[in-house]
Amino acid sequence: MTGIEEFTSQYGLVRKIDAFGYLDYLKSNPDAPRKHGKVVLVTADTPLKASRGEGKTTTTIALIDALNARGIDAAAVLRQPSMGITAAGSKGGASGGGKASLTHPELIDWGLCGEMAAIAAAQNLLVSFAEKAVDEGRLDTILVPRVSEVPSRSLRQIAVDRGKNDVPERVVLTPTCELMQIVVLSRSMDEIGRRVAAMIAGTKDGKPVAFGEFIDLWRITNMLADAVKPALTETLNGSPVYVHGGPFANVSLGIPTLVAVEMACALHDVVVVEAGYGADAGAQKWLDIACREYGAQWPSAAVVVTRASTWRDDPSLSWRYPFHVQRLENYDIPTFPLINLWEGEDDQVDSLRATAAELDFREPIVGNLFRDGGEALAPQLDGFVAALGQSSSAAQFHSRKGMELVENVKWIAKSAYGVPEDRVLLKDGFTESLVAARELCREAGIAIDDLAVVAVKSPATMTDDDTRPEDERTVTLKKVEVHAGAGVVHVNLTTSLTTPMPKIV
Amino acid sequence: MTGIEEFTSQYGLVRKIDAFGYLDYLKSNPDAPRKHGKVVLVTADTPLKASRGEGKTTTTIALIDALNARGIDAAAVLRQPSMGITAAGSKGGASGGGKASLTHPELIDWGLCGEMAAIAAAQNLLVSFAEKAVDEGRLDTILVPRVSEVPSRSLRQIAVDRGKNDVPERVVLTPTCELMQIVVLSRSMDEIGRRVAAMIAGTKDGKPVAFGEFIDLWRITNMLADAVKPALTETLNGSPVYVHGGPFANVSLGIPTLVAVEMACALHDVVVVEAGYGADAGAQKWLDIACREYGAQWPSAAVVVTRASTWRDDPSLSWRYPFHVQRLENYDIPTFPLINLWEGEDDQVDSLRATAAELDFREPIVGNLFRDGGEALAPQLDGFVAALGQSSSAAQFHSRKGMELVENVKWIAKSAYGVPEDRVLLKDGFTESLVAARELCREAGIAIDDLAVVAVKSPATMTDDDTRPEDERTVTLKKVEVHAGAGVVHVNLTTSLTTPMPKIV
Repeated sequence: MTGIEEFTSQYGLVRKIDAFGYLDYLKSNPDAPRKHGKVVLVTADTPLKASRGEGKTTTTIALIDALNARGIDAAAVLRQPSMGITAAGSKGGASGGGKASLTHPELIDWGLCGEMAAIAAAQNLLVSFAEKAVDEGRLDTILVPRVSEVPSRSLRQIAVDRGKNDVPERVVLTPTCELMQIVVLSRSMDEIGRRVAAMIAGTKDGKPVAFGEFIDLWRITNMLADAVKPALTETLNGSPVYVHGGPFANVSLGIPTLVAVEMACALHDVVVVEAGYGADAGAQKWLDIACREYGAQWPSAAVVVTRASTWRDDPSLSWRYPFHVQRLENYDIPTFPLINLWEGEDDQVDSLRATAAELDFREPIVGNLFRDGGEALAPQLDGFVAALGQSSSAAQFHSRKGMELVENVKWIAKSAYGVPEDRVLLKDGFTESLVAARELCREAGIAIDDLAVVAVKSPATMTDDDTRPEDERTVTLKKVEVHAGAGVVHVNLTTSLTTPMPKIV
Repeated sequence: MTGIEEFTSQYGLVRKIDAFGYLDYLKSNPDAPRKHGKVVLVTADTPLKASRGEGKTTTTIALIDALNARGIDAAAVLRQPSMGITAAGSKGGASGGGKASLTHPELIDWGLCGEMAAIAAAQNLLVSFAEKAVDEGRLDTILVPRVSEVPSRSLRQIAVDRGKNDVPERVVLTPTCELMQIVVLSRSMDEIGRRVAAMIAGTKDGKPVAFGEFIDLWRITNMLADAVKPALTETLNGSPVYVHGGPFANVSLGIPTLVAVEMACALHDVVVVEAGYGADAGAQKWLDIACREYGAQWPSAAVVVTRASTWRDDPSLSWRYPFHVQRLENYDIPTFPLINLWEGEDDQVDSLRATAAELDFREPIVGNLFRDGGEALAPQLDGFVAALGQSSSAAQFHSRKGMELVENVKWIAKSAYGVPEDRVLLKDGFTESLVAARELCREAGIAIDDLAVVAVKSPATMTDDDTRPEDERTVTLKKVEVHAGAGVVHVNLTTSLTTPMPKIV
């Protein structure tokens, strides 16, 4: 593909691509050769616990290997895993496994080219500048949190300037911060600058003050110069894999950067996008935030990964997997169940297929992807490839912009979690939190109902108690937090951790 | 030079070199072609304030450009500046300026390849593991501080787990932490692992507990995989410049990594090493710590940089510059005064030369290096090149290992600051701090008197009050802190900031 080499540099064992530059080049050269790849969304069943993956990355890698083996030019776009969590041992890496692996998983798992660290440093510098603004009398309350790349539960609530002013603060994991969201959603460094300028640093006499009022934006954008470039690596079989953007779809976006996906679509025919945690988390965010509100491409097909044990071993939770598959089909996205077998589960294939048939699923794709990689998938992809060929990526969807915030959350609860609006409850304090957030936005000249809603929740639950019968399930809203720069508003469900900062386990 | 290419990878606009691997290769291949370059130390007058550089990096760059222009194969080894301080605007970058610049100063100043950030993440992970050890009852008090790449004075004293346990902690700047010292001083990843294992995590019932007793060392060394590789960039004139190791010679080591210097010596005939702040800081640390205790190469020549204004505009401080020059000459290091002129100072050359002659200096090198770069130096280097050719790098020096700690500090005060031992005073509390440190070491099975002393002080002063007459100058010792993993013991002078964490200015 002409052009892309000029925007590509070697970085050790991976390459980094100036995606902003390449997409600009395509815009100013409409006749330049390019592809118009279709997006395939890889999502999963809701996991039984946060630390237990279903195998989305393994599936994504096996899938592109299998497609390339069939002569289809396919690439994957992954999010960068959190080094802190990996290093701490709280969670494995996120670079596949066994035959469905990357050539250099250690690079992806252990900090890549410093992207996350640069975002952390820039977000922390914003807090330092906010402190300076307090000293100068421009601010009296800081609203942006500091971040850390490594988990430490004791950082959830801290006091700084101990012994003098004892200012209460909180620290969040880097991938969940507003600056990471800005990097994920922005299509140029100028857009990043504008969004950073619009971030609400804090308040002065109750009125919001944006960073644009007192910082030099170049200090932040300089820090991000390399972090905005997607990394390119490959699978053991040589299929291209782009890595860019942060994890944790339960408490933030948890999707790859939009530019990484758009660049991949210009370079390949099929682009497999992995979104974080279950379909209620990353897939919901890809569809309802990235596609509806930020112009990302609607998927032409979806693969929903589960493990035999996740799907069937807890009967009270077995409703979740068919719910996810059906939900995506209802959007006219051809949706393929994929059951990722573990050692010793080969004898379950027939029974799994029978269950899938009872549920009116498409023919499921079943295999031990760790053991067999893409070879396990290749013979099962006829239906998938056919569906992909027929589907149109110009699917029908519309923005929820302007929908009143609670109505918007109720719509999410209904469409993504299966809970009707009369069972969306408001916890004590939620209304006050919403009124305060609405007022903050009004003072900042933003319509809160125009912000995209980020549901902040546990990765392992969709409702207050997923084990209850369907007609008793509820969703309770706890609080609201505005990320004006990213253009999103967080709504915390009661299942969420207020501050995503796990303990080392 | 055969061999080095195999250890070199492109990282965007710079290259990274597996120095550990290359030095191992040379060790196992004694007949492989290599050079035995001589080290030239570039140091400076004590600056008037921390944020005001004399021009060491500018000089270093101009010097190697001038030597290469004369056909001498010369390279520089610089420390990586602190992105946090640069981004915050507290201090300029450290990549030269004007004609004496690097091709891509922005890379050096803005995070390089994430080395500092990886060290920060690893040091913070150590604290997280120490917290886990507290939960498990292995520790009751944590001694290692968290670190931050960006300055924020409010972090000097913090409380974590606010509202529950309110545990007091402190945060220090990344370049000053023990893990950075370990990276600077170690010659293999195994050595880093051993040194991390020997770091004292904290105490249990008053007894020291080392990290080796409870962490997986691979988690830390994996995080550092890229950070241990020096970066290679070049000057505008194409002279090679290696960048590796952290700044801040006043409160830590502030010298480049030993492996970067050793690798450069195997590849070039002259290796110009820049050490931080004044000769009382970085040069003292290079000579008395790196050379005496860690086997680094004794300099074959030194250049002491000053500005006309630093040297002469405050008569009460004008003793410092000749003191530094004379001190290095006393070690038989041919020492060249270099006066880095600023705009509008060209007419001072004759008077500066006259003053230098009165002081019995070698013929000083004088020029506006920002404006003229190496061209300003080249015609003045005959004496320097001749001295370098005559000097032997096998100079006489000896370890201070085993010297009682206070005696050792008194020796530093006398040799590096000009204060005799009867004017080295102990502040209230110093003795208790020393007794506690000595006991901690004893319990850990370490002889405190075998550790290398790191004087922790203000960058802009050598004594309690440099403006007083020589026979009234004192040095007061405040406290002692052991970095058992790095093999050093910090002794804070009263002029030091307890925690190096500046405010944004």
